[in-house]
Order: sequence, then structure tokens, then C-alpha cells
Amino acid sequence: MSKIEIKDLTKLYGKTVALESLSLNIEGNKIYGLLGRNGAGKTTLLNLITNKLFPSNGEITIDSETVFENENALSKIYYMSEFNLYPPTMKVKDLFKWTKEFYWDFDVEYASHLSDKFGLKKNKKFRELSTGYASILKIILTLSSNAEILLFDEPILGLDANHRDMFYKELINHYSGKPKTIIISTHLIEEVADIIEEVIIINNGKLMLSDHTESILSSGYTLSGKAEDVDSFIQDKRVIGIDTIGRFKSAYILGSRPLIETMNKHNLEITKLDLQKLFIQLTNS
Amino acid sequence: MSKIEIKDLTKLYGKTVALESLSLNIEGNKIYGLLGRNGAGKTTLLNLITNKLFPSNGEITIDSETVFENENALSKIYYMSEFNLYPPTMKVKDLFKWTKEFYWDFDVEYASHLSDKFGLKKNKKFRELSTGYASILKIILTLSSNAEILLFDEPILGLDANHRDMFYKELINHYSGKPKTIIISTHLIEEVADIIEEVIIINNGKLMLSDHTESILSSGYTLSGKAEDVDSFIQDKRVIGIDTIGRFKSAYILGSRPLIETMNKHNLEITKLDLQKLFIQLTNS
Repeated sequence: MSKIEIKDLTKLYGKTVALESLSLNIEGNKIYGLLGRNGAGKTTLLNLITNKLFPSNGEITIDSETVFENENALSKIYYMSEFNLYPPTMKVKDLFKWTKEFYWDFDVEYASHLSDKFGLKKNKKFRELSTGYASILKIILTLSSNAEILLFDEPILGLDANHRDMFYKELINHYSGKPKTIIISTHLIEEVADIIEEVIIINNGKLMLSDHTESILSSGYTLSGKAEDVDSFIQDKRVIGIDTIGRFKSAYILGSRPLIETMNKHNLEITKLDLQKLFIQLTNS
Repeated sequence: MSKIEIKDLTKLYGKTVALESLSLNIEGNKIYGLLGRNGAGKTTLLNLITNKLFPSNGEITIDSETVFENENALSKIYYMSEFNLYPPTMKVKDLFKWTKEFYWDFDVEYASHLSDKFGLKKNKKFRELSTGYASILKIILTLSSNAEILLFDEPILGLDANHRDMFYKELINHYSGKPKTIIISTHLIEEVADIIEEVIIINNGKLMLSDHTESILSSGYTLSGKAEDVDSFIQDKRVIGIDTIGRFKSAYILGSRPLIETMNKHNLEITKLDLQKLFIQLTNS
């Protein structure tokens, strides 16, 4: 079980502050969602964890060892980056063997099995793959790496709904068989809401929120109905956002849920908070 | 109100059949979702409608006029393509003026207003824009074109959840003010399910389904609960798919909904069909 500890991490690019005094404990054997707007600092954080960038201040350790130029700590991580760092003319099947030279525990058989499942042709060269299939290849390499820590940066780029569904199912399946520390950075928040146990939100380079998904979603509720009915109910409530469609409204409210009977009487519907809508309300500037 | 009629359309690339005998009537003043897996033929269809490709067989008309080399028919369409066909060193504000030379009804003021709203800097050159902001620019150009028919091909590429939400809201707002014919091709099906009035599904180059969103979603229901409870209930039902998570199951069933009271007695929950899950079940090979 691998833990990542991040202490007072700051990263500057010239005068631009990409990350500011970020501290975070990532305990082992859980699936984390790393959420943030474009430019919030998510990829910078993943690049710092994997020693591809160096912090301006602060420290990152894996199982109490610094990641800074530390082969042993870094070997515990497989990082699916948004960049394609593979030899362009290498065939998929050869990429599996090539990866095994760096990751000794790489499972070539599992990789081959997943290729068949996702319809990835093993005789294709890397540069011949579409955006979607390049993502699928990188997902397969990551899952098959057998590393203790898997980092996914926007894994679903270019995937259609069917392949995204297959990925989420395979990820759960993989994790159930062999618990490990998984971090997924993605913009498709609602699709991963059922998968991630912990939510980390970074906003403008700062840690905004880090909590169990369950606690976050049970901290409030969504109230929907006719605009006037919703308006009169929410007057004394802590409303974090409102969506209006025609004569209907949904209000996102923090606090404990009222009784369903009360709501039925007022023609109002209570549903759970939607993680993506909550995220949007929290991070809209 | 502009209508698109597609008759017996076939497109071959060498020996590969991209579209096969596709016939479709797109009536005016509605929002259509054009859905299909990667490689199903969606972009080929949009390229044929806009005369960027020529059909191997069949015909496409707009308001009864062929689109083939027909300036008048084609001028009614603005097509947000996945390709970036803009001069790379041109600034955003100059792209607005440049577009107005081709689309006389282009609304520069609205484009400028949307740029401020989405945080797109008008002094940036096109090549300096991130993937997300390139999509935002293309969305703004399309909405401001004032064309009678708007075609969006994967408009949300690279957008974070907040910008996607803004896009959907702006689209509804724009459409309510000035109804027109809008076709959105996207892989984020569940996110557009509330926006699109009509669903067109293309599978392996053939038309699989074309119907009102409401009719499709009311043709069945989702049943969730403990695996054994779900299993015993669905024995005589028309099940189009099942998702299993641990000891729980969701079954997607065609047919009319059973009474909620009956379901509560069996500890089963009934919810509406989810368009994305339905799509996945229909198009999984």
C-alpha cells in the first residue's frame, strides 16, 4: 500500500504561480478523483509527483521517501500522461515488450487480453492510432503495468461512450482484484462520480477541497420543481447554485435533506447532489 | 425554417463503405443529436451535407435544392468542424471580421460578448489558443454566424465542465431567441440528453434509429436493486442490457413501466432510461 505525502508544494513558471502551498495526504488503496478547471494546476501536480517537474518549494514523498531523483520511489508509479511519448513507428505488440523493460511486473498477457477486448489492433504502429485508440493503448499500458500507484491524466480523450464505459468497468474490475492507489484527473466528473472514493479539487493552484465523495454528496441535496415553488422554499436555505430551464428550476442546497413527505406536499422533488454540478458551482469564478 | 433531406446516401472510400443507403428527413427548427461510435460515419455525413465530400450515390437537398456545388443552399449552413481551418496567426478579433466577409449576417457584437463571457482573449492569435479555447472560438463563430442551420461536430473537445455547462446554456438561450435547425454530433450523450429533441443514431454507416428523444426514453425504464431481486423480476421482460456493480444490478428494460408501489414492495427502484446507457447497449457489437 503506497502513500503519497505532499507538503507545502509551490510551483512557479516565471512569475506565474501554478501551484501554491499545496499540502495533501494521499493514503493508499483508494481511487481518487483529481478535479479542477483547465489551467487549475492538475497536470503540474501530476508532473511534480512523477519528478518530471521540480517544485519551487515544498516536498513530495512516496512511502516517506522523496520522489526527487529517487528511482525506487518513482518505480512505484505508472503515469498515463496526456502526451504521447512512445516511439511513433513501434507496433502496439512491441510497445508491450518495450514497456516490460522498464516495468518488470508489466503483464504482457493481460495487455494482450485488453487489446482484444477494446478492439485495439496489436499490429498497428503507434502513429497510425486515432486519438481514441492512442488513449486506449495508454490505458492498457497503465492497467497492465502492475505499478502500486496509477496516475491517469484525462484518460478518456477521444473515447466514445462505449469505450469509456468499458474503461470504467475494467478499472473497477482491476482495482477489486488488486487494490492500489489510483488517481484520475478528468473533466467528465459525473461519469466518474460512482467510481472515485475521494475527491480532490484544485482551483487556481490551491487546494479547494479534499474529502470522501460520500461526505461531499451527503452534505446537501438538489431541489427541483416549478420556479415559484422552488423560490419560496429556498429563502432561508444555503443555496450554492441554481439552474433554470424554462419555468422549472433546480437549486443546489447545502444542509440536511428535508422530509420527502413535506416536499411532495409542495410539488418539489429532492434528489442527491450531482458531483459535476457541485464542482461547477464551487469553481465558477 | 430550413429542411435537410437525405436520400439513399452512400459513401465509399475505396472499398470501405463509410455510409450505406442512408435516408433521413431533418425538419426545421429543432435540435438534433447525431450519435454514433467512433468511425460510425457521423463526420462523413456532416462533410457530405456541407459538400466537402461528394456522395458515391444518393442526394442531399436543403429546402429542396441540391447541396452539390450550390452556393445558395450551402450559404444556409455554418459547420463547426473538428478541423481548425483558420489562419494560424490571425487574432481572434480579426477572425470575427474575416468570418463576416463570408457570412454577411455574422454578428460581431454577439461574438465579442460571448468571448468576454467565456473568457476568450480577443487579442490572442488562433495558434496560441489551447484545445479548449480553440473549441470555444469555434463555438462562438458558429453561434454568431446567424446561419439557418448550425452543425456542431464534437463541440466540447477539451472543454472543462464549467465551459461545457456554459455552452449548453448558451445554446438553449440562443435557440429560444431564434429557432433554427441545429445538429450536434457528440460522444457526451448524457450531457446533451436534455437539450436534443431528436435522436439520430448511425451505426456502421447505417441509420439505426431516428426518433423523438421523449419517445425513445419513454419506451422503457431502468430497474435497480439487489442482483437477486432484479434477476427474479426481469425473467419475462425484454432486457436490452445489464450493469452490475458488486451485489447490485441495473437492468435496462423495454416496455411500459410497472407501478411504483409494486416495485417498492420488491425493494426495486424504477428510474427513466438513460440515453447514454441505451446508446451503449444498442451499439455495442
